Amino acid sequence: MIVLGIDPAIRTTGYGVIKAETGGRFSVIDCGVIANSPRLPHSQCVRRLYSGVCELVETFHPDCAVLEEPFVGKNAGTAIILGMARGAILAALSVNGIQSFAYAPTVAKRAATGRGGASKEQIAIMIAAELGIKIEDIPLDSTDALALAMCHAARVLRSGGTPGREL
Amino acid sequence: MIVLGIDPAIRTTGYGVIKAETGGRFSVIDCGVIANSPRLPHSQCVRRLYSGVCELVETFHPDCAVLEEPFVGKNAGTAIILGMARGAILAALSVNGIQSFAYAPTVAKRAATGRGGASKEQIAIMIAAELGIKIEDIPLDSTDALALAMCHAARVLRSGGTPGREL
Repeated sequence: MIVLGIDPAIRTTGYGVIKAETGGRFSVIDCGVIANSPRLPHSQCVRRLYSGVCELVETFHPDCAVLEEPFVGKNAGTAIILGMARGAILAALSVNGIQSFAYAPTVAKRAATGRGGASKEQIAIMIAAELGIKIEDIPLDSTDALALAMCHAARVLRSGGTPGREL
Repeated sequence: MIVLGIDPAIRTTGYGVIKAETGGRFSVIDCGVIANSPRLPHSQCVRRLYSGVCELVETFHPDCAVLEEPFVGKNAGTAIILGMARGAILAALSVNGIQSFAYAPTVAKRAATGRGGASKEQIAIMIAAELGIKIEDIPLDSTDALALAMCHAARVLRSGGTPGREL
């Protein structure tokens, strides 16, 4: 099973693609970010997010995608902008027929590291050890996306736990 | 000039397509809604919004699009969902190379009816009179979208006023 994890944001969207084998072995296929310059207008940011996700789908043919459940803060203005990033990304997944699930960041971090409040650096260390890759090959902004993908794969293939909310 | 006005929402997105001639004459080409059943998951809603806007662009070849500037309330949860609708719609416009502008609803209503607080029914009456069409041919949920399109066309072609914020 190939799982695409995505941590959406209008400026820096992290992604991680993992391969999870039925025996329970995980490996990283790719991880990185879709970065939008702070000067880029929102119309161009959502276009790049949409096209970037389409490209990831075409390249890696994931079986499903996993997004971070949005942290609903108090600022409605910020929430609209985060929502725009999510909408463009979810549209790209859905147009390409990819089923999407969501997990709270704390749930994904706990699954990957044992601690819901783990920092990006701590997640990177745990993921590098678990998946046998070099820590410098994991961009920090892709750690949450990798944790999301691993959390979902573990629930589906290892523990048989309940998968996250379907989007 | 052909202007596509869009009033984004996750469940009922209104749209209006108008033709504005250089002499200042406006006519309605089409108006309606992209409706998503309340039972439809968000992934399918944003897919339908994305595909629906692509279809409008392919059918009517608008020169530009005009969206409602989002009303930022206090509820961040609602704002994320409205943002998702906007993100999917703006991505569809941007992927198709359509330039988008935004106006506050009060500005668009004032331009169309003379009153920023006009109801959908009042806008429909004014638009029907201005554009010489039957009021029953204007779905109420498309009135704000038509007002947005007329507001932008009037600023660009009639009064030479400042166009709205570019998205």
